[in-house]
Amino acid sequence: MYIFQVHHYIKPEMLEAYKNATLENARQTILEPGILRFDVFQDAKAPAHFSLFEVYRDLVAREFHLQTAHFLAWKEVALVSFDRKGHGDEFIALFPAELDWKK
Amino acid sequence: MYIFQVHHYIKPEMLEAYKNATLENARQTILEPGILRFDVFQDAKAPAHFSLFEVYRDLVAREFHLQTAHFLAWKEVALVSFDRKGHGDEFIALFPAELDWKK
Repeated sequence: MYIFQVHHYIKPEMLEAYKNATLENARQTILEPGILRFDVFQDAKAPAHFSLFEVYRDLVAREFHLQTAHFLAWKEVALVSFDRKGHGDEFIALFPAELDWKK
Repeated sequence: MYIFQVHHYIKPEMLEAYKNATLENARQTILEPGILRFDVFQDAKAPAHFSLFEVYRDLVAREFHLQTAHFLAWKEVALVSFDRKGHGDEFIALFPAELDWKK
């Protein structure tokens, strides 16, 4: 399993474009066979801060995602939306245990 | 829905105690009627960094959780485990949309 959470900080004038592109990407991404979870969150107190929580079956599934047309289309919008550099964390799932994660 | 992610930074000598207490708390917490998700993660690259991803049906469910015996037992261990102050974010779910979240 490969778990990645990324944080993005978006230019005010790009909020809607980023949000639409991210939702469209999420709707396609969740259909990929190797994706267990693909959640999109917006910070309740800082609306320019978004976080994507991505759970892949393995690194192969992650690599597959990075080459899909929907990811590449999203990336074009995202790259011009970032207000500053984002950051991310890779996690290990302790609870539920990895074997208990289902789509 | 109330979504909260907290980040904890644990003293090296308290890692196992914190982990055990957190797993025990998670196993009890997920049984609460108002809890939609209660995930426990450990940073794959910084093992002293843990993150809890908590999704409650509403703020009432969050308040209920904070008064349970299992939360209070966890808190006793957690308070002596923290190496430095943690931090947290409150999120709004964009994808899946709130109505699509199930336990």
